Amino acid sequence: MTSRSITDLQLAHLLADAARETILPYFRRSGQGLENKDLEGFDPVTAADRAAERAMRDLLRQHRPEDGIWGEEFGRIDGTSGRQWVLDPIDGTRAFISGTPTWGVLIALAADDGPPVLGLIDQPYTGERFTGGPDIAEMTGPLGRRPLATKPGRTLDQAILFTTFPEVGSPAERAGFDAVAQQVRLTRYGMDCYAYALLAAGHIDLVIEAGLNAYDIQAPIAVIEAAGGVVTDWQGRPAHGGGRVLAAANAGLHALALAILKQTPEDW
Amino acid sequence: MTSRSITDLQLAHLLADAARETILPYFRRSGQGLENKDLEGFDPVTAADRAAERAMRDLLRQHRPEDGIWGEEFGRIDGTSGRQWVLDPIDGTRAFISGTPTWGVLIALAADDGPPVLGLIDQPYTGERFTGGPDIAEMTGPLGRRPLATKPGRTLDQAILFTTFPEVGSPAERAGFDAVAQQVRLTRYGMDCYAYALLAAGHIDLVIEAGLNAYDIQAPIAVIEAAGGVVTDWQGRPAHGGGRVLAAANAGLHALALAILKQTPEDW
Repeated sequence: MTSRSITDLQLAHLLADAARETILPYFRRSGQGLENKDLEGFDPVTAADRAAERAMRDLLRQHRPEDGIWGEEFGRIDGTSGRQWVLDPIDGTRAFISGTPTWGVLIALAADDGPPVLGLIDQPYTGERFTGGPDIAEMTGPLGRRPLATKPGRTLDQAILFTTFPEVGSPAERAGFDAVAQQVRLTRYGMDCYAYALLAAGHIDLVIEAGLNAYDIQAPIAVIEAAGGVVTDWQGRPAHGGGRVLAAANAGLHALALAILKQTPEDW
Repeated sequence: MTSRSITDLQLAHLLADAARETILPYFRRSGQGLENKDLEGFDPVTAADRAAERAMRDLLRQHRPEDGIWGEEFGRIDGTSGRQWVLDPIDGTRAFISGTPTWGVLIALAADDGPPVLGLIDQPYTGERFTGGPDIAEMTGPLGRRPLATKPGRTLDQAILFTTFPEVGSPAERAGFDAVAQQVRLTRYGMDCYAYALLAAGHIDLVIEAGLNAYDIQAPIAVIEAAGGVVTDWQGRPAHGGGRVLAAANAGLHALALAILKQTPEDW
């Protein structure tokens, strides 16, 4: 099969299918072969994580040898096309080892060091897939195929806000988050990338996180923007490099949260 | 059909089937008809919640007219049999309105004001059902049918701990929770009744909550005990009346967490 016999979107789905098939046998099994990748904190890497990234890299080498690859597990390989595939085979490894169905496979296609143009969030256990790109904004899952569209304008006091854990990041980052949380209707924790999928699907209004890597956020950016949402850092700049992220269902809500988060010192 | 033509277990599954069918059309729909039942806090009741409890009550009247019913939505009806069905049609209404697949239908059969003998936790969207009783401890879901069995003995520093939100309850209750959280490997938030199901299925080690109602905890108690776990209040007493709850994967871990939680003043 020559490299251009399938579209980028088709290839992204192939990657997600391969990751799903590779990871699922490891989910909710004992003896997952956990390692401590990060000696500082708690960042387990499972055999599933590595196997899934290998499977996706094999497909990319076959179908897009000219594109670069940036994956969480095996780092960066430059391409010659000016494009790169950004992969996080299991976003939410803590969720994964806890058995919750709220981790996900993240796949994005982006310009080298540029913003993503196509993104996909896949949840293998629930069978949900959220896809966003130039001509697509849809999800598939237990309730069938549905268009993705973020919620319409709301005030902060009606908003539902998510982040993954209450510490958020540094003390200053936590304070920034808390300042927004104090104004919203409901704050919830623990969803990892699944929160971005819920925002794209129109169920929640805001996701605020800090300390992200590029591969944590590129796929969510593409999915959310295709669905009508806005994603930036806490200063309103592009967020595809990671760090502090504000995702909002619409521009009005984004502006309200950004005005609060902007006050967080940049180097804390 | 006469009242004893089906077993209690069969009836519990009938109730769960009816609740699932009733609730699912409301999940992830806009305009869920939310009310503020609790003016003090945030306790939305959806049309789904009420419709599902009605459906379950209809089945109970048909099959077990002699049994009492205690449901979250429509209160308590005494029976003549000395037994009651304890129902929470949607445990985790905040999860439900946020679109996360971590709420559940809770069904328990108990002696009047006594401990549950049979319990069922159902997640309609993922299609998961966790069942525990005298002769059964199993789950069904996307990966098929599996026995439920809690994790073997561990030290606190290897344990995964869940609660629904970081405040936990009163300041004293939060302090009690935090004292345990400081000793565990990983603390996660946001799962409502789904955390108890994960504990019964052997994925996590501890769930600690406060301020529960009887209908929040009776089904989890039956499921966890059938799977080998231990559930009490923070003084080691029966927890089927609600309040402060400690659920542990095994007796050893339960004793370690209880020794810490016991120091929480009882009337705070």
